[in-house]
Amino acid sequence: MKFITTPVKGMQDFLPADMRLRQHVMSLIRSSYRTYGFDEIETPVMEHIENLSGKIGGENEKLIFKVMKRGRELEKGLETGEIADNGLRYDLTVPLARYYSNNRNNLPTPLKALQIGNVWRADKPQKGRFRQFTQCDIDIIGDSSIMAEIELIAATSRMLTTIFEEVGIREFTVHINDRRILKAMAAAAGFPEDSYDDVFIILDKMDKIGLDGVRESLLEKGYAPEAVEAYIGMFRLITPDMTCGSFCEQVCASALDAGVMAGMDTIMTSVAGMISKDVHLMFDPTLVRGMSYYTGTIFEITIDGYNFSIAGGGRYDEMIGRFCSQSVPACGFSIGFERIVTILRDLNWKEPDHGMEKMAFLVDEKSGADKIREVFAKATELRAQGQTVTVQPLKKNAKFQVETLEKNGYTSIRKVYGDTEL
Amino acid sequence: MKFITTPVKGMQDFLPADMRLRQHVMSLIRSSYRTYGFDEIETPVMEHIENLSGKIGGENEKLIFKVMKRGRELEKGLETGEIADNGLRYDLTVPLARYYSNNRNNLPTPLKALQIGNVWRADKPQKGRFRQFTQCDIDIIGDSSIMAEIELIAATSRMLTTIFEEVGIREFTVHINDRRILKAMAAAAGFPEDSYDDVFIILDKMDKIGLDGVRESLLEKGYAPEAVEAYIGMFRLITPDMTCGSFCEQVCASALDAGVMAGMDTIMTSVAGMISKDVHLMFDPTLVRGMSYYTGTIFEITIDGYNFSIAGGGRYDEMIGRFCSQSVPACGFSIGFERIVTILRDLNWKEPDHGMEKMAFLVDEKSGADKIREVFAKATELRAQGQTVTVQPLKKNAKFQVETLEKNGYTSIRKVYGDTEL
Repeated sequence: MKFITTPVKGMQDFLPADMRLRQHVMSLIRSSYRTYGFDEIETPVMEHIENLSGKIGGENEKLIFKVMKRGRELEKGLETGEIADNGLRYDLTVPLARYYSNNRNNLPTPLKALQIGNVWRADKPQKGRFRQFTQCDIDIIGDSSIMAEIELIAATSRMLTTIFEEVGIREFTVHINDRRILKAMAAAAGFPEDSYDDVFIILDKMDKIGLDGVRESLLEKGYAPEAVEAYIGMFRLITPDMTCGSFCEQVCASALDAGVMAGMDTIMTSVAGMISKDVHLMFDPTLVRGMSYYTGTIFEITIDGYNFSIAGGGRYDEMIGRFCSQSVPACGFSIGFERIVTILRDLNWKEPDHGMEKMAFLVDEKSGADKIREVFAKATELRAQGQTVTVQPLKKNAKFQVETLEKNGYTSIRKVYGDTEL
Repeated sequence: MKFITTPVKGMQDFLPADMRLRQHVMSLIRSSYRTYGFDEIETPVMEHIENLSGKIGGENEKLIFKVMKRGRELEKGLETGEIADNGLRYDLTVPLARYYSNNRNNLPTPLKALQIGNVWRADKPQKGRFRQFTQCDIDIIGDSSIMAEIELIAATSRMLTTIFEEVGIREFTVHINDRRILKAMAAAAGFPEDSYDDVFIILDKMDKIGLDGVRESLLEKGYAPEAVEAYIGMFRLITPDMTCGSFCEQVCASALDAGVMAGMDTIMTSVAGMISKDVHLMFDPTLVRGMSYYTGTIFEITIDGYNFSIAGGGRYDEMIGRFCSQSVPACGFSIGFERIVTILRDLNWKEPDHGMEKMAFLVDEKSGADKIREVFAKATELRAQGQTVTVQPLKKNAKFQVETLEKNGYTSIRKVYGDTEL
């Protein structure tokens, strides 16, 4: 049998340096959210095919890695034509909905959940897109109040500030909108209700095609010119210092519950007092967010100077109810873990050294048992002081050995022979 | 479409309290081995079916969860009858061999690797046995000297002492043997070489069937009575204070390279100076270890008073060469992560509180925007001091809300109304 040494197509081996960065980011994420009272949870990587195909996953449902039935289960499947009963999860949202429904009697209410885990998508692999990658989601389940939004946005902004200040990035923008405002604007412009989703898909392309592009696309789709012009006119009223209230009063107050504006105001003013001065909060009526399951507030965080979002989410009050046939409010953020790691790596992130040098003893194997015992005794002493020490044989190719140690952060490297004084 | 709320058969959802314990153990494992210069690495959870079926995995090769080909790949497979090209890994050893072969030009030499990851086995689920569980392996690859054994045994003993002292367990026994001693004993007793593996499988049952049971089983299998009696006689010479040298001199020195005894002596005396006084090192000629790929030293750690091993491993100098057609020495330990977690949980492990209480503000939603802002400002102040604080709406079922918070370690819980002074 011939072994294959490359990883499975589209998947990655992580070298020690990769892992140091990934583990460092994970541990900052964990400690940041812990301070805000989030609890980590975990679900199995496999889910029932039925759950993965339930129309919550959108386009990802086409990308499921299916896991075959086994043994007798498989034989039964061959008769009926079904040979896969499970699949690898393509996101952390479907498993969370199942998890909450399964465990809600043993979970805090509200549940403030942090999930860090791998997901799998049978996508066409390309640069920067892998078939196994890590997602990080935070969600508050069972809180219908705006306190959920405030905690999520504040905690996530703080987390990003903490992680990125190590590479000198401090400025972020939090874009906030509300599905109900999006809908009120479309209604006030005169679009029919069943066209909203289609209109929002076009609006979502604003950053690529500009406001004129949105106008053209809407007209091409055959929407009434008056509605299109009224709609485009609303977006021309956007100014940098407007509030949600002042904007909505102008464009869609008649179609909007006043509570939405008041809630947005409380979210903005509360969060402003909780985050770094370099994080800019912005009511952004052009923010759409793709997933159709959002029902209220939506948000996205961008790094100033980078043209993509690093975290995004919103309120989805109706999804979990589909699992447990009981209405359960929910609000969550998905963090772009792989993007964070890529940016830090590209900016040459260096591991904080905590003031302790990493030390290596390279021992000539002919030094004899007494010298070997002496080296290990010395290493034990240094390790007890918290120092990282490795003891290993001195290789024939000592140059390569020393170089790889240096690449892995060892600053003190000593060769030990039989007559070396330690 | 109906959703299924239970996890996939044989797999587990982890509640917040489960995760705190699991993460705590993982982080002690990581920091322990880091001090000894081990680097964490990670491989994809999926491996090529060819690698998983290459006779390295033993019985586990029957338990592979197969992942189906996708799209056009699948259509091609249906013609040829092969519909799965990948499988979920059943251990961390096969992926490590592939990983080292694939990346050896970019890895330190020797590589001191720590892996913590899930593995999957389509086993019959039963109490305490799951189809997805976490394994933790440490390996030193590219070191043919006994320094590898010394580092592995010392680091693992220290790690266990650190983890278990939190629940008052301090006494462990490290059993050490060598495949070459096992073979020399079988040779000196007069067994034919091709029967060694079979003899060792029977010897491995000693702790269950006793020495007399081993004798009977060997005789039943038809081995020459003189060989069996000579073999059993050797084990009767075991005494608590014997050394490897004194034992082997009596029973098998003629069939054994003197370097093996000297090496064992240096391993024992070096490790003795590196570990807690409550960890007992024991040369144990009855130790077999199941996997046939071991070539030299083998070891196992038991907790005194528990009748199973908590970690085990050995030297396997010939396995990685099968992947990269180049001889690569290797030595490793597999840690019983799930067993550690189970024991700590059964002994009511409590999360260290680091002197900081966890605090909850339960806010009446009718308190008004000003009070909400004030609560969040207060929470921000406390969080900046490193305190864990959660802010959430006061639920109608406040009793359950408070109870679940208390269960999750919140010791200071304040209800906030519009007129509460903070």
